[in-house]
Amino acid sequence: MKKHNFSAGPSILPKEVMLKASEAVMDLDGIGLSLIEISHRSKEFVAIMEKARSLALELMGLEGKGYQAIFLQGGASMQFMMTAFNLLEKKAGYVNTGTWSQKAIKEARLFGEVVEVASSQEDNFDHIPKRYKVPGDLDYLHLTSNNTIYGTQMKEFPETDVPLVCDMSSDIFSRQLDFSKFDLIYAGAQKNMGPAGTTLVVVKEDILGKVSRKIPSMLDYGVHIKQDSMFNTPPVFAIYVSMLTMQWLKDLGGIPAIEEINERKANLIYSEIELNPVFAGFAAKEDRSLMNATFNITDDGLKDMFDEMCKEAGVSGIKGHRSVGGYRASMYNALPIESVGVLVDIMSELEKKG
Amino acid sequence: MKKHNFSAGPSILPKEVMLKASEAVMDLDGIGLSLIEISHRSKEFVAIMEKARSLALELMGLEGKGYQAIFLQGGASMQFMMTAFNLLEKKAGYVNTGTWSQKAIKEARLFGEVVEVASSQEDNFDHIPKRYKVPGDLDYLHLTSNNTIYGTQMKEFPETDVPLVCDMSSDIFSRQLDFSKFDLIYAGAQKNMGPAGTTLVVVKEDILGKVSRKIPSMLDYGVHIKQDSMFNTPPVFAIYVSMLTMQWLKDLGGIPAIEEINERKANLIYSEIELNPVFAGFAAKEDRSLMNATFNITDDGLKDMFDEMCKEAGVSGIKGHRSVGGYRASMYNALPIESVGVLVDIMSELEKKG
Repeated sequence: MKKHNFSAGPSILPKEVMLKASEAVMDLDGIGLSLIEISHRSKEFVAIMEKARSLALELMGLEGKGYQAIFLQGGASMQFMMTAFNLLEKKAGYVNTGTWSQKAIKEARLFGEVVEVASSQEDNFDHIPKRYKVPGDLDYLHLTSNNTIYGTQMKEFPETDVPLVCDMSSDIFSRQLDFSKFDLIYAGAQKNMGPAGTTLVVVKEDILGKVSRKIPSMLDYGVHIKQDSMFNTPPVFAIYVSMLTMQWLKDLGGIPAIEEINERKANLIYSEIELNPVFAGFAAKEDRSLMNATFNITDDGLKDMFDEMCKEAGVSGIKGHRSVGGYRASMYNALPIESVGVLVDIMSELEKKG
Repeated sequence: MKKHNFSAGPSILPKEVMLKASEAVMDLDGIGLSLIEISHRSKEFVAIMEKARSLALELMGLEGKGYQAIFLQGGASMQFMMTAFNLLEKKAGYVNTGTWSQKAIKEARLFGEVVEVASSQEDNFDHIPKRYKVPGDLDYLHLTSNNTIYGTQMKEFPETDVPLVCDMSSDIFSRQLDFSKFDLIYAGAQKNMGPAGTTLVVVKEDILGKVSRKIPSMLDYGVHIKQDSMFNTPPVFAIYVSMLTMQWLKDLGGIPAIEEINERKANLIYSEIELNPVFAGFAAKEDRSLMNATFNITDDGLKDMFDEMCKEAGVSGIKGHRSVGGYRASMYNALPIESVGVLVDIMSELEKKG
């Protein structure tokens, strides 16, 4: 049975990418060796790494603008700590939009003063805080552009002279943004970019080297940049599949093309949530995420029927996170609009039955 | 053409493991979804993680002895720093047996006093230091059991009450040892355990929690243990393939069985190096590694011919590391003895031609 994979991450990747990755595990481009048994210093893998790095900058329109793209390990959780280790000298500001922001704040507190510039915690993070003031004396302001758990997404970003650091793990490469407004962007691969196991860090070089503490080599962005993202053995498979996925996106027309598709997918499900009395959206309308639609069933008596209908149709991964409950349909770049159609049909049918 | 893959790492894995990994990228065990598109909290992946953790302890004979196995990211290079972050309060001892020991020493110095208990640096690390005294006041003694670059391997380990930390990246699961003599063992996967992208850490729980500094969550062994190695999204593919490789080893008869095969492979090449005047081994005889045989050509005029013969026979990855020069044949667990035979035949033929 065909599955419709709404998993919040690790999540769906393009079928053609998975096919090529599967082949490369047996034989990489006909060289007679597997992708996973060659040296990372081989010309084949060096070319893969360089292509991944340049595709990331190209997709974001950041080529020749003083940025470097590196592929690290440890996920966004490692970046919560690394950003502070590398950038926090005295005081940093954080906008608290949910669980991941909170984790970033917790790690940063080990390195300096942390100011919560704004927060929507009182409302269980059902919206994005707006119209807050950014103090001018911050080393940086940290933002989380999309909140998978709550289904909220920043549509606008603060105008400030303070360097902007942004966790884009769950909406990187999904919509057009002026990425040059940010000084450091990080994103775990396992939503829009590739499989779990690598994290993209895009950093404006001139913000580095300003803290006085000594930084262990593996945690020092400067060390990784200097070594062309090969300070030590990189996570070969995850970077290869990320490269393929970025190439797939480029061939599709890049971020402008996928943004249009993502908007159509989101419109489809949010229209249903609005019109169908059996369902109620969780996130504030103006902050709804293009990536993760969160919603509840208004009549608990219909829950089992809905779950059964989803299961029968091959819809998987829509259980909501425990801190919000209900449902969450994650619609990352690689999810076909047909899958959203299948889910919306079930929702509509449930209304008739209910 | 069949390749004989002597790569120093990432390196050869069992053919059946690569086949199964390739299939899982398309469809994991017939569930209709790819290994790399399912949630790491799914019952399928949780089972994979738990199997990997228990296989690691089982192969090492460490079940029920107070040890935990966790799979982290960042390679051994991350462990150079994490071991010190978690264990170094005042003073640690290091045995310096080469490049990787030196890197470990460099990172540890950020956290406390580091004593080089013994070193073979003066002889370009062509042997393992012996008969050194281990001071009793060390927080731990750090060893590197096998040195890929120089082709040396520790055959004996110091008897001491000081906790032993050992980097076994390049010879884990390759020979019988009393692993319970060690308090912390770490190993990047990409030699004997799996593809690049994950690192096994086996730690005796009672050595943790003794340093006074605050440890960032991602660098804290205790945090990862408490979360069953799932504090954040783990590197799914690398752990899955490691699990398959450990299962392959178990089915083969475990470490005793592979040790016998590894000894036969090593005997084959070292006999040839000893008997063939065209070649000279680099490492001291008593310290020669079962994993990496390092050697030079005594007559430079034969170098091009040897390289050409290797290329024609599909022998790949035997170029020596730049700090030693010459050749290095890495014979990790998955390398068939037939491949060593092919190389030895070329060496022998070269002697006749030379």
